[in-house]
Amino acid sequence: MHIEELDTPHLLVELNGLEDNLDRYQDYFSKHGIGLRPHIKTHKSLTIAHMQMRRGAIGITCQKLGEAEVMVAGGVDRDVLIPFNIMGRAKLERLTALTRRTTLTVAADSKITIRGLSEATTAAGVSVGVVIELGGAGRCGVETAQLAGELATLADSLPGVELRGVMIMPAPPEIRPFLQECLAQFDAKGLPYPMVSGGSTPAAFTAHEIPELTEFRAGEYPVGGMKHLQLQTHTVAQCAVRVLMTCVSRPTANRAIFDGGSKSLSAALFADEERGSLMGHIIEFPEARFSDASEEHGQVDVSRCDPQPKIGDRVQVIPVHPCPTFNEHDVFAAIRDDRVEALWPVHARGAIR
Amino acid sequence: MHIEELDTPHLLVELNGLEDNLDRYQDYFSKHGIGLRPHIKTHKSLTIAHMQMRRGAIGITCQKLGEAEVMVAGGVDRDVLIPFNIMGRAKLERLTALTRRTTLTVAADSKITIRGLSEATTAAGVSVGVVIELGGAGRCGVETAQLAGELATLADSLPGVELRGVMIMPAPPEIRPFLQECLAQFDAKGLPYPMVSGGSTPAAFTAHEIPELTEFRAGEYPVGGMKHLQLQTHTVAQCAVRVLMTCVSRPTANRAIFDGGSKSLSAALFADEERGSLMGHIIEFPEARFSDASEEHGQVDVSRCDPQPKIGDRVQVIPVHPCPTFNEHDVFAAIRDDRVEALWPVHARGAIR
Repeated sequence: MHIEELDTPHLLVELNGLEDNLDRYQDYFSKHGIGLRPHIKTHKSLTIAHMQMRRGAIGITCQKLGEAEVMVAGGVDRDVLIPFNIMGRAKLERLTALTRRTTLTVAADSKITIRGLSEATTAAGVSVGVVIELGGAGRCGVETAQLAGELATLADSLPGVELRGVMIMPAPPEIRPFLQECLAQFDAKGLPYPMVSGGSTPAAFTAHEIPELTEFRAGEYPVGGMKHLQLQTHTVAQCAVRVLMTCVSRPTANRAIFDGGSKSLSAALFADEERGSLMGHIIEFPEARFSDASEEHGQVDVSRCDPQPKIGDRVQVIPVHPCPTFNEHDVFAAIRDDRVEALWPVHARGAIR
Repeated sequence: MHIEELDTPHLLVELNGLEDNLDRYQDYFSKHGIGLRPHIKTHKSLTIAHMQMRRGAIGITCQKLGEAEVMVAGGVDRDVLIPFNIMGRAKLERLTALTRRTTLTVAADSKITIRGLSEATTAAGVSVGVVIELGGAGRCGVETAQLAGELATLADSLPGVELRGVMIMPAPPEIRPFLQECLAQFDAKGLPYPMVSGGSTPAAFTAHEIPELTEFRAGEYPVGGMKHLQLQTHTVAQCAVRVLMTCVSRPTANRAIFDGGSKSLSAALFADEERGSLMGHIIEFPEARFSDASEEHGQVDVSRCDPQPKIGDRVQVIPVHPCPTFNEHDVFAAIRDDRVEALWPVHARGAIR
């Protein structure tokens, strides 16, 4: 099937770019002796997760329990990390069941989370690995080494939880002093840390500058996105995730409207210093400014394009942020050289619980 | 079932607020003799669409053909307007089939669109209604009355398309001069315009200031959102769409992390003049600033809250923009006074084609 036979808008993953990315990131981590633990929250696809495992990934990362259930049920069940505080009766029951199907580790940044995990696993007669989440980037995670040490001591002392170390997000080289300070607390108390887990695709290629890391979580590297184009970790060909769209209106000399908006690309915005806020990069019209979108209309300033897109023209648009883009779609077309090789489900789409 | 039994994050629609909104907007339009044609792109729910029809709606608006197929197949099939330029073989085949199941009107803002419609319907031996889309708001639509007249003349002259009038989006009172100018072109050429369709919830209550309007398309009025809170068309109780979330982390004295992020709320941002960019309004903690989110983490500044949310606290968050929020979910809980009355599917979620 030729790509021209796909109706628009349609989510695409270009397989040459995907495979290139899977290889070069795995090669980097293998070369440096750091475990690569892909974050499946980007693609949400069993198919791509299996490709990652076959290339040497040590296990996977899932942001929510529901994503982990989809992955484990689909055979990606060697070793799963959920870097999230899991709490509440409903989720804890599912978590204890999941420990029987895979090697499971979860993150915690509070005594409440650790005690909840211990009570649930003990009652169920199982055990779960715990890593202490270290903060600093304005999201979750303890912000002092002392608190990291206290939580680690608690996790080490309670039944049903096995202290496995620490995780931090993101992990550029600048976090090393804080990481070392936290691990010194573990050393001082004689606590184990077989897992020291860093993360984020933009910081992936500097992971070796933090020798303490045993593993690295990266999500976006298989497909890239506008941020990766700007950071130059990915070329246009390596930005493998695109949304195929059709130009449906040319209301003025400078404006083109495409049939993909925030329901195809997601509502994520990219703040470009020179061109303002952007919603995507049009491969065929790199001078176009995809400046705004409503749910089904992509609004594009084509004043700098020569030639300009015409009504009926089809284009491929690289999204700002690949993770929410995948979540807008049930299926993507796996393409190579303008042929559709397969239509693959976004298996874990919408697994928010 | 009590709402406390729902796991989080979970999409909610509060039925008292919903029914209040359905009644008061229908009452307004009935009183002024303007047809209300609800836009189902907001809730994407057959259930709510049927409620709207039972209250007196003249038909519905669907932004994409796929949404219209879901609605018509689910019995909301009296009269459907798709305000979008539909083109391409695959969609035109579906469109001609749909004309056999409902009274269908589509928008067009170019000769290419009108000719494509005419060729497809003529080949299939059917006919479709066409309204000329008038622009001016930076999206689709013709921007001169002369072009509106030319397109109307073309639509009137071709087989398989029935010229029905015009549509415009949005339709605050300021558009009236341009609308009149366009209709004067119709009059001058003796062309019919039984449909003069305005739209957008924020402009709904001024529709009567444009006597030319025969009908009005509004999507967000049943559930509101942060914009409607600010405009004061909706109270907190009338903002019927919420995302139920749990506080899962309190990393610092001023920060709380909730288990709902952009995959629950959507990535839409609200630009608040005083408080900067916001992603939602927390009903239980109105002083909180929901300032940022990643896919699964909601980041909230709670420095102005007294008391502050604690780990384990559950809250209801009004999203910025209800339409993409519904699209993140397969199901919503219909609640009333803290009881779950039903779990209803988001039937047309993801219908982007």
